[in-house]
Amino acid sequence: MKILVVGSVAYDTVRTPFGEVTEVLGGSAAYFSAAAAFFADVRLVAVVGEDFAEEDIQLLRERRVDLEGLSRVPGRTFRWRGEYGFDLNEARTLETHLNVFAAFRPRIPPAYRDSEIVFLANIDPELQREVLGQVATPQLVAADTMNFWITGKPDALRETLKRVHTLLINDAEVRMLAGEPNLVKAARKILSWGLRSLVIKRGEYGALMFSNGWWFSAPALPLEQVLDPTGAGDSFAGGFLGYLANTANFSLDNVRKAVIMGSVMASFAVEDFSLRRLTRLTYPEIEARFREFKGLAQFEDI
Amino acid sequence: MKILVVGSVAYDTVRTPFGEVTEVLGGSAAYFSAAAAFFADVRLVAVVGEDFAEEDIQLLRERRVDLEGLSRVPGRTFRWRGEYGFDLNEARTLETHLNVFAAFRPRIPPAYRDSEIVFLANIDPELQREVLGQVATPQLVAADTMNFWITGKPDALRETLKRVHTLLINDAEVRMLAGEPNLVKAARKILSWGLRSLVIKRGEYGALMFSNGWWFSAPALPLEQVLDPTGAGDSFAGGFLGYLANTANFSLDNVRKAVIMGSVMASFAVEDFSLRRLTRLTYPEIEARFREFKGLAQFEDI
Repeated sequence: MKILVVGSVAYDTVRTPFGEVTEVLGGSAAYFSAAAAFFADVRLVAVVGEDFAEEDIQLLRERRVDLEGLSRVPGRTFRWRGEYGFDLNEARTLETHLNVFAAFRPRIPPAYRDSEIVFLANIDPELQREVLGQVATPQLVAADTMNFWITGKPDALRETLKRVHTLLINDAEVRMLAGEPNLVKAARKILSWGLRSLVIKRGEYGALMFSNGWWFSAPALPLEQVLDPTGAGDSFAGGFLGYLANTANFSLDNVRKAVIMGSVMASFAVEDFSLRRLTRLTYPEIEARFREFKGLAQFEDI
Repeated sequence: MKILVVGSVAYDTVRTPFGEVTEVLGGSAAYFSAAAAFFADVRLVAVVGEDFAEEDIQLLRERRVDLEGLSRVPGRTFRWRGEYGFDLNEARTLETHLNVFAAFRPRIPPAYRDSEIVFLANIDPELQREVLGQVATPQLVAADTMNFWITGKPDALRETLKRVHTLLINDAEVRMLAGEPNLVKAARKILSWGLRSLVIKRGEYGALMFSNGWWFSAPALPLEQVLDPTGAGDSFAGGFLGYLANTANFSLDNVRKAVIMGSVMASFAVEDFSLRRLTRLTYPEIEARFREFKGLAQFEDI
């Protein structure tokens, strides 16, 4: 199956307790694509400015990412600057310059309209809906969002969610979106709006999936080296949807494996800054880490 | 195998967003005993005052807890008052009255000295060591501790840990004890002091066990009803050590099941205030919940 992703491609300046980088390739759609491309064909819809480096185009092209939907327009590429403390679960945003992203209106190339899987990364819910209006009949629509849209555009978000099958957000956002402190009640309420499933990202605590009365809990691998958590959630989405696209199998058992594959890709993404670890990754390393997750989580019946 | 536990038996006054209770039975040794007694013989060493209610003695006796080591002395029983916000992971202590617990010096009845498993609940590390001096040759010594002792009596704690096989603490305490923000490095450092294993309790995020290079991650069951998290950690310890005592099997596979059994007992403890859920619990409910954990965590190989 082919995957269409719409989101940001950005230059990030990031400081963590373990180092800092200046104006490195980032953005939700970039992380997603780098992760998903290990498993399936990825079509990228995003915008960059005239300053976007040819080497970054090359980097994505080498991952076999289809860049027909990446428009290059006058102006500067989206910039984000942030930092993390020892608690790597939350970024402090220091600067955001939307630049060319401010006027972004996603235009889906005709060749992308038959995409079977769509990932709407964390952008304005109205733009997310515009994308869906241009895709024929996707079998799986997944979306990310954040507190900014939950509080700032709640009606637009609710409207978009009517057309989304799987929402991927963190646990604070689940509670905020549902207006309900208990995670189980909050998840059930959100699914009652018509979604098929919810994937709750919990950073160093792993991920929880909720669908139709069943829960699946994926652990996070305890990592000795976490340099930069930026992009972990989008790398998770890339592994999750990439694996589903590759296997074209939406059975419960396979969806569980896809959640683990999402966790695998997130665990690699955080081991270095920018897309560095994802771009030097090999498929045998992915398989080996999947087995590590298996060893981490398995136990016998009593 | 027989389990000896030393810790507090207290009257708790607790307020959570879901209700409040006044002067109900609590304390680390009480929760531990109520949980562990489902699996094995438990010998309780603690102190209460003259005001300790006969019905609470009866409650423990009905769980088949051996109370020869529970001394009743002039004065009032230990009181704790605390509250929780919607984030149930952390208690705010409002009042602590040690009362008879202030002068507690654990005296182990001769009949308890052959205990094969010892649980040193969260008390002064010097008292923990005094207990070990009175037990013959325990096969497994597990201990809990907290930030108060880590910062207040670090040398005494390190001395006690030399005689402990398994330490059960939360993740902030792991980092504090090791003086190392990375959990993997912190866990490895603590084990280098001579411990066999570390169980890291993470509240609603489950538990992690680390031993000799391997990790095991136990999920937490997403619960719709969490009334009061007080005693969750001690109930975990009760399920964990109770299951090991019952099976008398310290193989890696069995230890993993014991961690899940700890999680099972903690998941019940938080469903009501005080020991209420644990005391009306049945063994078939425990087995059913163990299977729920299995369903929550399992996935197939790729």
